[in-house]
Amino acid sequence: MRNKPRHEIQRARQRAHYDEAIVHAVLDASWLAHVAFSGDGGQPFVIPMLHAREGRSLLLHGSIASRLMRRLGDGVEACVAVTVIDALVLARSHFHHSVNYRSVVAFGRAQPVTDDRDKAMALARFVDIIVPGRAAESREADHNELAATALLRFDIEAASAKIRSGGPKDDPADAGAPIWSGIVPIESRLGAPIAAADATPGIDVPASLLRSGCRAHVMHE
Amino acid sequence: MRNKPRHEIQRARQRAHYDEAIVHAVLDASWLAHVAFSGDGGQPFVIPMLHAREGRSLLLHGSIASRLMRRLGDGVEACVAVTVIDALVLARSHFHHSVNYRSVVAFGRAQPVTDDRDKAMALARFVDIIVPGRAAESREADHNELAATALLRFDIEAASAKIRSGGPKDDPADAGAPIWSGIVPIESRLGAPIAAADATPGIDVPASLLRSGCRAHVMHE
Repeated sequence: MRNKPRHEIQRARQRAHYDEAIVHAVLDASWLAHVAFSGDGGQPFVIPMLHAREGRSLLLHGSIASRLMRRLGDGVEACVAVTVIDALVLARSHFHHSVNYRSVVAFGRAQPVTDDRDKAMALARFVDIIVPGRAAESREADHNELAATALLRFDIEAASAKIRSGGPKDDPADAGAPIWSGIVPIESRLGAPIAAADATPGIDVPASLLRSGCRAHVMHE
Repeated sequence: MRNKPRHEIQRARQRAHYDEAIVHAVLDASWLAHVAFSGDGGQPFVIPMLHAREGRSLLLHGSIASRLMRRLGDGVEACVAVTVIDALVLARSHFHHSVNYRSVVAFGRAQPVTDDRDKAMALARFVDIIVPGRAAESREADHNELAATALLRFDIEAASAKIRSGGPKDDPADAGAPIWSGIVPIESRLGAPIAAADATPGIDVPASLLRSGCRAHVMHE
């Protein structure tokens, strides 16, 4: 194992990016993060969490009762991965099958954010990254809810992005083989909204959802 | 930090599942895994990888030149997370916004698989988990390709699944508030296939893709 900086990509270097704008664009492309850290005795843990980027930091939240949030908040070394899969890549050979993806691996440490106003703003951010504009349509957190929320700010010390795009890279020897080759985009979209069983009657699908491309027709549980 | 088994879920225990059938079903729902381990000095790493479940193990593959594959193959403690997001959960309050998800966190160690026949079968498995039936349509790996492939078998020693489903759990005090509440499913589907720039002319979209719900009409790069 060569002694290289932890964020420096060794393999497929043509796919590596260290430019901050590219790293941030990938981080902003998905609110699902996988957060890793070492527990007692070096035992690795990785847990899925929502994240919201704020400058060179990622906001993470959870319950104040969470031992994992406490451990992270102690400022241990952490590693966060954000991954988006864009397409399936079908080559003529098994070996060259792949997927197109954008991913970031970021290294740093987290620290707790305890100010109530900062926490309230962060909770609103989390609502708005799920559905832009939704925070303004729903009730802000009250004092008890803020007290029950642990908020962490993970400061990115080093990060790299890895991106694969484009078609399959087939072996030249396979040229002309009667096998289809190409890519298939993976598309993600919102389905029809389903009103809660205890939904307040007579409330239309909110503007935030309509702007996100949701159908106006609501289904009921 | 209470001294509990590493895979035992502390928070939101009503969402926890240890049943092997449930754990396996979640693992099989996505081929994207996030694999964590500790490097030198306890530095945590997490990297996105494709996985294919085989019984109580997960097959992982990469380049033989990958230092991360080598480290994993040394049998260090590893932790693998697989996460599927099913729906956005819109509550009346910021605090109760959430997402419906299925996730598994599995603990264990990996070991290299070196037998050429096992490696060839594993590569075919990876092709078939991306598009079922695709392995039979494309060329198997040859000796050089197998030699360039590092294959690991991660044996699951302990695992837990966490599942959130259903509607928002609003605060009773918010009942009747004029705010929409419910869920919005997130749907993933395959888009129109795009033939490679160097595709063999006159080859139709393969049966595997049509069975996966792909359109028969191909776009060209």
